[in-house]
Amino acid sequence: MSSSSLHVGILTGGGDCPGLNAVIRGVTNSLIKTVGARVTGIERGFMGMIERRSRPLDSEAVAGILNQGGTILGTHNFANPFSCNGVDVSDKVMEYVRELGLDALVAIGGDGTMSIANRFTPLGLPVVGVPKTIDNDLMHTERTFGFDSAVAIVAEALARLETTARSHGRVMVLETMGRYAGWIALEGGLAGGADVILIPEKPYDLNEVIRVCKEREKKQGYTLICIAEGARPIDGGMVVAKHLENSPDPIRLGGVGNVLRQQLEQHLESEVRTTQLGHVQRGGTPTPYDRVLATRFGWYAAKMVANGEFGRMVVLKGDECASVPIEDVANRTRNVPENHSLLDVATSLGVSLGLPA
Amino acid sequence: MSSSSLHVGILTGGGDCPGLNAVIRGVTNSLIKTVGARVTGIERGFMGMIERRSRPLDSEAVAGILNQGGTILGTHNFANPFSCNGVDVSDKVMEYVRELGLDALVAIGGDGTMSIANRFTPLGLPVVGVPKTIDNDLMHTERTFGFDSAVAIVAEALARLETTARSHGRVMVLETMGRYAGWIALEGGLAGGADVILIPEKPYDLNEVIRVCKEREKKQGYTLICIAEGARPIDGGMVVAKHLENSPDPIRLGGVGNVLRQQLEQHLESEVRTTQLGHVQRGGTPTPYDRVLATRFGWYAAKMVANGEFGRMVVLKGDECASVPIEDVANRTRNVPENHSLLDVATSLGVSLGLPA
Amino acid sequence: MSSSSLHVGILTGGGDCPGLNAVIRGVTNSLIKTVGARVTGIERGFMGMIERRSRPLDSEAVAGILNQGGTILGTHNFANPFSCNGVDVSDKVMEYVRELGLDALVAIGGDGTMSIANRFTPLGLPVVGVPKTIDNDLMHTERTFGFDSAVAIVAEALARLETTARSHGRVMVLETMGRYAGWIALEGGLAGGADVILIPEKPYDLNEVIRVCKEREKKQGYTLICIAEGARPIDGGMVVAKHLENSPDPIRLGGVGNVLRQQLEQHLESEVRTTQLGHVQRGGTPTPYDRVLATRFGWYAAKMVANGEFGRMVVLKGDECASVPIEDVANRTRNVPENHSLLDVATSLGVSLGLPA
Amino acid sequence: MSSSSLHVGILTGGGDCPGLNAVIRGVTNSLIKTVGARVTGIERGFMGMIERRSRPLDSEAVAGILNQGGTILGTHNFANPFSCNGVDVSDKVMEYVRELGLDALVAIGGDGTMSIANRFTPLGLPVVGVPKTIDNDLMHTERTFGFDSAVAIVAEALARLETTARSHGRVMVLETMGRYAGWIALEGGLAGGADVILIPEKPYDLNEVIRVCKEREKKQGYTLICIAEGARPIDGGMVVAKHLENSPDPIRLGGVGNVLRQQLEQHLESEVRTTQLGHVQRGGTPTPYDRVLATRFGWYAAKMVANGEFGRMVVLKGDECASVPIEDVANRTRNVPENHSLLDVATSLGVSLGLPA
Repeated sequence: MSSSSLHVGILTGGGDCPGLNAVIRGVTNSLIKTVGARVTGIERGFMGMIERRSRPLDSEAVAGILNQGGTILGTHNFANPFSCNGVDVSDKVMEYVRELGLDALVAIGGDGTMSIANRFTPLGLPVVGVPKTIDNDLMHTERTFGFDSAVAIVAEALARLETTARSHGRVMVLETMGRYAGWIALEGGLAGGADVILIPEKPYDLNEVIRVCKEREKKQGYTLICIAEGARPIDGGMVVAKHLENSPDPIRLGGVGNVLRQQLEQHLESEVRTTQLGHVQRGGTPTPYDRVLATRFGWYAAKMVANGEFGRMVVLKGDECASVPIEDVANRTRNVPENHSLLDVATSLGVSLGLPA
Repeated sequence: MSSSSLHVGILTGGGDCPGLNAVIRGVTNSLIKTVGARVTGIERGFMGMIERRSRPLDSEAVAGILNQGGTILGTHNFANPFSCNGVDVSDKVMEYVRELGLDALVAIGGDGTMSIANRFTPLGLPVVGVPKTIDNDLMHTERTFGFDSAVAIVAEALARLETTARSHGRVMVLETMGRYAGWIALEGGLAGGADVILIPEKPYDLNEVIRVCKEREKKQGYTLICIAEGARPIDGGMVVAKHLENSPDPIRLGGVGNVLRQQLEQHLESEVRTTQLGHVQRGGTPTPYDRVLATRFGWYAAKMVANGEFGRMVVLKGDECASVPIEDVANRTRNVPENHSLLDVATSLGVSLGLPA
Repeated sequence: MSSSSLHVGILTGGGDCPGLNAVIRGVTNSLIKTVGARVTGIERGFMGMIERRSRPLDSEAVAGILNQGGTILGTHNFANPFSCNGVDVSDKVMEYVRELGLDALVAIGGDGTMSIANRFTPLGLPVVGVPKTIDNDLMHTERTFGFDSAVAIVAEALARLETTARSHGRVMVLETMGRYAGWIALEGGLAGGADVILIPEKPYDLNEVIRVCKEREKKQGYTLICIAEGARPIDGGMVVAKHLENSPDPIRLGGVGNVLRQQLEQHLESEVRTTQLGHVQRGGTPTPYDRVLATRFGWYAAKMVANGEFGRMVVLKGDECASVPIEDVANRTRNVPENHSLLDVATSLGVSLGLPA
Repeated sequence: MSSSSLHVGILTGGGDCPGLNAVIRGVTNSLIKTVGARVTGIERGFMGMIERRSRPLDSEAVAGILNQGGTILGTHNFANPFSCNGVDVSDKVMEYVRELGLDALVAIGGDGTMSIANRFTPLGLPVVGVPKTIDNDLMHTERTFGFDSAVAIVAEALARLETTARSHGRVMVLETMGRYAGWIALEGGLAGGADVILIPEKPYDLNEVIRVCKEREKKQGYTLICIAEGARPIDGGMVVAKHLENSPDPIRLGGVGNVLRQQLEQHLESEVRTTQLGHVQRGGTPTPYDRVLATRFGWYAAKMVANGEFGRMVVLKGDECASVPIEDVANRTRNVPENHSLLDVATSLGVSLGLPA
């Protein structure tokens, strides 16, 4: 493959994540500058391959996007060339790939995007993956871009809630993202000074949470609770407030933060208030840390393309970029391990994880 | 009253509002510097008068608090010397006032705080009021401190949601504060580029909101909705999703934003997501604008004390501080007027207010 | 002029100012939505009229620019059709205007832009002006967009400097924009808790500044100084440090902040440090306040075009938009008046203006 | 040493660094919670040991300081018990240590602080070190707290400058901290999208910088330059603008950023502007990343005290805390290595390091 004629496609798949544009810029500029490649952006994830929507990318096209949220290429959550409304259209997609003359594809996305992308390699479109997960729950990598931004937003929200909680003697509940992995709630809670941190990996004892709040009611007068959306009480189901028993899906309606509020209000003198940050955590300008990390991921993906390291995905090892086979990380979640040092940091500082006494 | 012996109490009552500390600092430093007064901070609002908790304030005590959220004096939502667990303890409170030797009181708070404070003037403790309302719904004043901070937080959240909505083709619902007045949702929505703004003063037509979202689904592909917690549909009650009919209080459980999400999801192809900012809007560091405004309010309150203008409250007229009798503003809410220019700005720019066609 | 065929040009001239894009968006969306006008953006200020560079603007073109810094149209500091390298090319420019079919021009800019723009009205291109000045020094208007953003940046810088100054016993000098008017230094200094504020309107006594710093060295241990780039000492010239006497232009080289540092270091025990914010104050994302204000200015300019109110410029009166003849504001600077209430606020709080004792 | 009676002193020395308070909080809370220790804060670094100024620290004392800039204990740049105005007063200091009953000392500071602290171990006060350097130039550790905050401030400043540079066709020079190590300029420059990054480790060729600016003048129309205060041109000295030749110390007066501006202005058509961030980079609220890192450092220092690991300093290895002997890191600077991957990232993206062609 003569690098002078190298033509590389790039697409972004799945949900939003601060830093996507920084990766696009990193890949594009590096490929152009280092190997003189041509770069084509596929629009709306794999949907663009199906609908034949793409556009050329050059330095001008990616100028000024480093700190912009979202993705200039758009994305799509469900498009799948191997099962498009149940039909395998990968032949047609490969036709489009050949028409464009693509030599390789850089796919930026999560699990779903990666497993689809990886199926193109044997069809003649070799793939380099760039992992995207706000939740920092990817195997074999210490940090993923977007996570620092999410943590920052959680921490800032807690800092705002803290001044009110302290001055006004309140219990404040902040519900964060994290259905399966508690990294955002854990790091965000530590960065924001939460008094209680509840994560999916550690089913919590509601009575213990109540006990902590009551003790703090007497001593400090307020409590800051940071709860991941996937956190659940120890009895395996949700302890629903009495008058909600008939409501078929209280968590879906109001989220765990609102349910916890109702439960606590029945046992505490203090007023309890809930904030549900939702997608505010995964959109918008990336932190400078994430801009650098995403840029490095993009730069490394370009290197991998130039070196022909296909079927692999960029990861962070120590403080350097590296790569692992895509199949090694697919469909696996990196949860907060049983004895992770951050859990020890939390309990050593007196932060409750809501564990049974 | 010889200014050399002037002794002034200061307290903060009611909910949190960015800028409280800036007012405390402004009052304290101005009184000390301009008339050599002594200043005493009453702790936890009127509760401190009942429980005899206060502390001296000087320049050192208020140094560095200008940009801190909360109130260094603490506050209390319900303490009332004229009805403390049903008993009028104002005699005992006035004893404490005489023991302290207070010549005047600066009361920073909302409606409740003001009407209690004003009853002390005839008992011998003349009062100057500083209005505190995050909602900007005070009569006779153009802006109140804390409002700019709340608007900024709403706008930043919308900016973050927008990049996701745009890149990923979503409908994003942001629920803001504002039970009776829609100022925060209106200004925050304009500052954050919302496509739909729903406020309590303008009951909305759910069908119109659906229509706008569907039209944007086709054209722009996404919609940003900013809804005040007090916004309600035109039929006067809440149109509750079918499966929630048995739930006694869906809005209390999940808030209007979560209910609207469920309603929209039944009619739209796009995914709908809700963010409920809650108290994040009323805590934390004030914006620089609010720091200046709160400082000016504090400075003016000190002037009023020095000039003996009691029974009055600081307001902003044009761009200057002025005062009005406390009773003129008590128990009255400044709603968004029928034909306010910001409503015209919104509709002229193509922002929907959800009004029936 | 039938509104259905109304065709409006828009350009941005002069230096940067947060909010320019919000005005462009406001004008464009309002003109399209309210009178069905066509809108054309002229590129790089008047240079685009000379070089015939323009592009159509519609809702899509201005989507997502509300909180972006800079101007999507570009600008030019010196282009002048009435004196282009000394030649009057206004005839050719008017030819281009007629080719485009422009019925009116919205010119967003400062003094220079306004006086050039106004000369097109008699030639057949009626003009509406939108004032742009970061310095808030426009006659007849209380606030201009961009000013709040500049104040916010100054205040945040002071807040950062304060923690260091306080913990480490330093004198910190922050040099702000403001060659002729001291509004940024004054409001920014108040919002950031400066101990000394030096503005062009109030020549300062270096000995008084030294005295304040020495007194604070003993008591508080640190001093925060906020100095406008145009501030000068009372003797009318700059008191230059001895070893710089041979340097022809020390202020141009290092700025007043660096010079003041050198002067203070000779008299104080504390270390003195300078920060020169420069253009950081006038670029980047506008504050939410400025986004709303700029949007309102754009909306009002569109109204003026639709109503045929030409030769006039948008201003803010009280809290509402209004207009004044362009010639009423041209070439006049609104300085901080002798007895402005903010000066009283400053001195009442114990902030020194460096005035001779 | 029975942990029930363990009594630990803590002090902060040297310059400011965001995260100091988070370390103090981490050490204090961990020691109290995990081993029931007593904690005493020494005020103003080693000066407090000389002047016998200290105060007890408990959870209440460190509540709410997690995100505050500065250090609640104060600091001092020069205090040295082994050479206090030339006299060794360590005997007297150890008397005070024995009076207080301190079993160990946690010293948070830079090189200077560490080498002084380490001399107390043989005298009977065993020491644990927590490294503090905004510059990230410590041997044996990947990241130090405060660095992420500095990088963030540089990146935000560049983002603001970029919109102006782009819209207005300017060359913008940002001078950052970094006298010997270029980490801040390098990561900040990458995070902020700088076009040219000049660091002390890579002497730059002024002609090459001019060439890049000229090329960009033609193509992109603007250039963003990020220069560390310690960056120098290849000829080993500073190429001073002609009219400054008589000025004895132009860099000290205006900084390298102002000198570079003058040099560039002589060769470019564009206007050139300089921003000198100064101490804004090392004060104020730490980023959430730094809050977590500093908290972990504090937690680990507490562990080391409890385990009796003295004469050692906390470092970050991979993503976990560890420790190294204090003497291993003293007086050594971790510069940007010759072939560091970030340098490759920069050049691959087309960022110029100003190297001779």
